[in-house]
Amino acid sequence: MPETSNKSEFIVGVDLGGTKILAGVFAPSLKLLGKVKLSTKVERGVDAVLDRVARSVREAVDECDLDMNQCRGIGIGAPGAVDFEAGRVIFAPNLEWRDVLMKKELEKRLDAPVFLENDCNVCTLGVHEHEFGGKPRHMIGIFVGTGIGGGIILDGKLFSGANHTAGEIGHMVMQLDGDKCRCGNKGCLEALASRTAIFNRIQAAVKDGQKTLLSQILGDKFDNMKSGDLRKAIRRGDKFVEKVVEQAAEYIGIGVGNLVNLFNPEIVVLGGGVIDALEDEMLKIIIKTAREYAMPGATEGLEIITTHLGNDAGITGAAVLVKQQLKQS
Amino acid sequence: MPETSNKSEFIVGVDLGGTKILAGVFAPSLKLLGKVKLSTKVERGVDAVLDRVARSVREAVDECDLDMNQCRGIGIGAPGAVDFEAGRVIFAPNLEWRDVLMKKELEKRLDAPVFLENDCNVCTLGVHEHEFGGKPRHMIGIFVGTGIGGGIILDGKLFSGANHTAGEIGHMVMQLDGDKCRCGNKGCLEALASRTAIFNRIQAAVKDGQKTLLSQILGDKFDNMKSGDLRKAIRRGDKFVEKVVEQAAEYIGIGVGNLVNLFNPEIVVLGGGVIDALEDEMLKIIIKTAREYAMPGATEGLEIITTHLGNDAGITGAAVLVKQQLKQS
Repeated sequence: MPETSNKSEFIVGVDLGGTKILAGVFAPSLKLLGKVKLSTKVERGVDAVLDRVARSVREAVDECDLDMNQCRGIGIGAPGAVDFEAGRVIFAPNLEWRDVLMKKELEKRLDAPVFLENDCNVCTLGVHEHEFGGKPRHMIGIFVGTGIGGGIILDGKLFSGANHTAGEIGHMVMQLDGDKCRCGNKGCLEALASRTAIFNRIQAAVKDGQKTLLSQILGDKFDNMKSGDLRKAIRRGDKFVEKVVEQAAEYIGIGVGNLVNLFNPEIVVLGGGVIDALEDEMLKIIIKTAREYAMPGATEGLEIITTHLGNDAGITGAAVLVKQQLKQS
Repeated sequence: MPETSNKSEFIVGVDLGGTKILAGVFAPSLKLLGKVKLSTKVERGVDAVLDRVARSVREAVDECDLDMNQCRGIGIGAPGAVDFEAGRVIFAPNLEWRDVLMKKELEKRLDAPVFLENDCNVCTLGVHEHEFGGKPRHMIGIFVGTGIGGGIILDGKLFSGANHTAGEIGHMVMQLDGDKCRCGNKGCLEALASRTAIFNRIQAAVKDGQKTLLSQILGDKFDNMKSGDLRKAIRRGDKFVEKVVEQAAEYIGIGVGNLVNLFNPEIVVLGGGVIDALEDEMLKIIIKTAREYAMPGATEGLEIITTHLGNDAGITGAAVLVKQQLKQS
């Protein structure tokens, strides 16, 4: 019998972001069967977004010719601080949410067990389980996109600290008098090396008269710049963009060095839109810099690699979360 | 009967540093009964230092009118990367040691069980157990002296990572183009806020013509400057020294903020010679800055305090280590 035949064995993983909701249906083997994308519509308020998350789950299940009662559970990665035990989003600036009992609200809407975690934790969990078979004892996940987030696996388990806020890798201050970060501090890794930081640096230089191929690619619409545009410009020979991206890679490398010195992990995994688009340009520099900055001894056996899960890291990790939790219960 | 009467129940804790060896004898209650200090004499080589450690243990025991066969075990905090399981000092720059099987060598010399850990880990363990009764689940210890070191307690246990090198708090880069650190990197917390960093900043300014009361206190011998001299100068109204010390406190505060964002601990404990001498001048600034830089949510219930164990943190923690290990076996 094919693995799609049994009842109540499928898992839905949801990646809830400030812009879009991605829902994927997984077989028990964690094979991805199908997915659906909706826009989040934060401006419509908490209830509307919860409805849309529920809709994304139902549509993904329908897309796979399945029924909701064939679903064992739903996992969700949400942006911000999440209280896993209470199933509560404590604070999610991108959603403008505070204290939302998401687990309870979605279980009401979907009539199936719902499990909730921070989005970067969920991505890290997905990589740890799906790419490494759950083997690494200590692993750090770093996801570089609009912002920079992270997840920490210690002793084989997600580590989230006293108040579920651990792993704020993007807000590690690395330049005391550096650029202002959206968190209010200065010189955070996120303000140095996220897509936003890279774009800000390019825009400021263009304003000062810097020439770049990005003007040909994007016209005047620099606001719509994507990581892929940077790659295009670099591959067409734009030395200026190349330098900005290489500098960001160096910053990320120093950040990885800091984390290696603090956590002494076996594996550091990099992911997110910037890394997905610019791996060829950035990874070598990140690895070289991190190894330079790490203390002797800490790099023995250390691997610094990228995830191949790409955009599916979040939904995969959310499915892993459900699998782990249902196994425990 | 007083607790000094039973046989084989006392514990010796040793704090091995690059300059001195401190050995203390503890009752089973962890009451400190007596201690002995020897200079380390690194220049005499590994075997001579091992002999001196053994001597410090025997002399401390004798000082308390006890006999070596009344000792259950000896705990040692050693500077550098330590492989606890193997009882091996992997690398200790201050001792110029590489791969020294310290546990085995000392058990030969002392005929009692020896347990070995990194010095900052041992200090953190001492504070965790002796000052907090082992209660905090997640705690970070930061020790500011000639350098800056740290220890990490996660889920109630010392965390040392994949290769026993975790917790290198002093080598977190916080100023990308900052002053060179003795580790070779630039802008490490240690290069910004250790006693060495404070002294270097003062000496450079004096060379440039800066007036300071330290010249009255120390004459020309700035090389002998101690943390207590800084305190004296500040209390006599030296605004220049005050500013340098306050700036160091701010750097430490940002470092604590970084650690709170990464580890989300319940307690951050500060200790070491600089903190012991300058607590009144530094602690408030450290706390204020750390709370400013920590993410919302991470500071809920967070305590940032100093240890009262002072110079005895190392020997106390070493004794705790023995107690924990002998209980397990």
